[in-house]
Amino acid sequence: MGDFDLNALLDAARAAARTLAASSGASRNAALEALAERLARERESVLAANAADLEAAAAAGLSGPRFGRLKLDERALDDLITGLEQVAAMPDPLGEIEALRVLPNGLRVGKMRIPLGVIGFVYEARPGATVEAAGLSLKAGNAIVLRGGKEALGTNRVLTRLFQEALEHAGLPAAAVQLVPVTDRGVVLELLAAEDQLDLIIPRGGKGLIQLVAEHARMPVLYHAEGVNHLYVDADADLEMALRITYNGKVQRPGVCNALEAVLVHEAVAAGFLPRLEADLEAAGVELRAHANALPFLKNARPAGAGDWGHEFLDLILAVKVVPGMDEALEHIARYGSHHTEVIVTEHYARAHRFLREVDASLVLANASPRFNDGFQLGLGAEIGISTSKLHAYGPMGVRELTTTKYVALGEGQVRG
Amino acid sequence: MGDFDLNALLDAARAAARTLAASSGASRNAALEALAERLARERESVLAANAADLEAAAAAGLSGPRFGRLKLDERALDDLITGLEQVAAMPDPLGEIEALRVLPNGLRVGKMRIPLGVIGFVYEARPGATVEAAGLSLKAGNAIVLRGGKEALGTNRVLTRLFQEALEHAGLPAAAVQLVPVTDRGVVLELLAAEDQLDLIIPRGGKGLIQLVAEHARMPVLYHAEGVNHLYVDADADLEMALRITYNGKVQRPGVCNALEAVLVHEAVAAGFLPRLEADLEAAGVELRAHANALPFLKNARPAGAGDWGHEFLDLILAVKVVPGMDEALEHIARYGSHHTEVIVTEHYARAHRFLREVDASLVLANASPRFNDGFQLGLGAEIGISTSKLHAYGPMGVRELTTTKYVALGEGQVRG
Repeated sequence: MGDFDLNALLDAARAAARTLAASSGASRNAALEALAERLARERESVLAANAADLEAAAAAGLSGPRFGRLKLDERALDDLITGLEQVAAMPDPLGEIEALRVLPNGLRVGKMRIPLGVIGFVYEARPGATVEAAGLSLKAGNAIVLRGGKEALGTNRVLTRLFQEALEHAGLPAAAVQLVPVTDRGVVLELLAAEDQLDLIIPRGGKGLIQLVAEHARMPVLYHAEGVNHLYVDADADLEMALRITYNGKVQRPGVCNALEAVLVHEAVAAGFLPRLEADLEAAGVELRAHANALPFLKNARPAGAGDWGHEFLDLILAVKVVPGMDEALEHIARYGSHHTEVIVTEHYARAHRFLREVDASLVLANASPRFNDGFQLGLGAEIGISTSKLHAYGPMGVRELTTTKYVALGEGQVRG
Repeated sequence: MGDFDLNALLDAARAAARTLAASSGASRNAALEALAERLARERESVLAANAADLEAAAAAGLSGPRFGRLKLDERALDDLITGLEQVAAMPDPLGEIEALRVLPNGLRVGKMRIPLGVIGFVYEARPGATVEAAGLSLKAGNAIVLRGGKEALGTNRVLTRLFQEALEHAGLPAAAVQLVPVTDRGVVLELLAAEDQLDLIIPRGGKGLIQLVAEHARMPVLYHAEGVNHLYVDADADLEMALRITYNGKVQRPGVCNALEAVLVHEAVAAGFLPRLEADLEAAGVELRAHANALPFLKNARPAGAGDWGHEFLDLILAVKVVPGMDEALEHIARYGSHHTEVIVTEHYARAHRFLREVDASLVLANASPRFNDGFQLGLGAEIGISTSKLHAYGPMGVRELTTTKYVALGEGQVRG
């Protein structure tokens, strides 16, 4: 890859972004539909490239979840095709003007929705993310520069080629979706320093990648971060409901960021709730790690260690603690939560609303499962991740979060006095 | 300052931010009004502290605009008092919920407006910024950590003390507004690395500061950046209007970021426009720096050098160039503009709208002065700066831009299937 020129690639992305900013929604949708068709038609070449990646990865000793994420099977490909069709069917976010107001001097001023420009997407194994991220980016009128993991390079090359063919088919520049064909850390550092050429970096991957980006990125970043999510069972909770929501939050899909990691139980209902919780969860194979104050109510729980609070288990493990009141629950969440998803179960009007107002998380729920923190579930359509930092986007990031607004003003010669 | 503990200060700010997030708009307004009263009542001690800062700065050899910005006179103090009263009178942005929607499963989901948390404000000489930034921050429910310049430290200490008294008077934590009493570069680097304790950094100052922040900040940043602003005189422009807007943009206040730096003139009107422009601007003492293609139309213009394109003169200097069409004007702006403010003067419907749509700047105007890119002028009330990066805020940043939204969900026991 000695002859690879990152600057030329980034310049081409900037030029493509200018064309996209002026493009019609119809042409961007046509490209998404053309890609869906190509993925269906060239299914074999995509799967063959993925099989080759898998073989090379196995030979190199890759195994476990990382190997699993590398695989792109028939069903995953079908989901990508359906996803592209759904994104194409969504309304075009661009060009709309929010509330054009008339100022006292007659100047008409509004905010027009526009693309962000060029997005850098730095991600690890899962090759499906190539199509999902580039599809959302295109819908929002952005160019994207993809830097995927080295194990998926062959699959990503085929997917990017098909995307570029689809763009050209729709009369749009192929450089709107480009793959960086180099997978070392050096090229990531170069991307993170290119603040004049990239308007945004989105990293998706493990803690090492996130830390590298936090330290070196010179442009804005949107992180998809971990979820250390709590459920507070209030003194006035419907305990049946609290059991149902805890079970759903912990057991339905324990390995994801909107799963539940800890339950805080008001002391007035600890004796009524905890033994039933243990019975429910034991049946599902969940291990409880209990604060000393919860152990008396539980038969088989392990004592929780200091590292169990604020920890994302991503597994069938749940931390449990008794609290003397809601203030202590709020304190615990402020200290150990990761600003992702927090739940209260209560029938008490004022406490429900206080919890919704005061807890600082991207989604705060009263009487519902944390598993709803998801772009599809919340009605955004597809998502590119869930942001837990507060600027620009806090919560699921969909097409709209990949746009911004600029001010536009329509005058008749106004000047300042 | 050997015993100064930045971590303790940041922890106190975080605790104060939690209290503010749950505070009423009435209590925050009461604090702003109490500060306005105190500034009026203790006018003498503020001015005395500033006189001492000025004397020390003069003794240390400070002069020119930096010395001028350090001065806080009676009139500036009156403006600060009026500004605080205006901010107090604005509606409370917090707690409002945008469009609560009912999902198919009955879950009610909305976006609630909340504070950002703790803001780090790193700025240079002007001590009035202390009151303006902390006032807006408080209105939006944020705690603020102020790190001002060393020349203004005495004035900033008095202003911060008065702000803290006003906060306590209103029953709010004094730590909502804190001054870092150390002014070396090391403490700035410490602030830029405190990503768990600061939700946002806002730098205001020269290029050195901006670059330091871009390189080292690990948290989101909102920049107030330079304005390299153009005006395009279209073939179908009303030339009288173009002259009036150019004059206003260049002459009214040349030292600010929304002033005009370059004019691009369509060749069809160059002969009719440029000689009149020169006559108008010469009377105001403006020096023209012209592209070779504009020189034939001008008597006293200097030839422009390569460094004059894309340059923020902040002075009575204007770059002038003739373009063969609108495409070339758009190219020039894309290459040399700083995404701040761009203007077209034209009576042509389609070209006006194409310019508004395609130019990538925080405010794009048709037939009006670039000097309107200002929070007061655009109806936002006070502003803390004008952002030219596209995430979160693009354009003037007022109270609303110092807030964010989180998702809230009201359920009746919903779980995911």
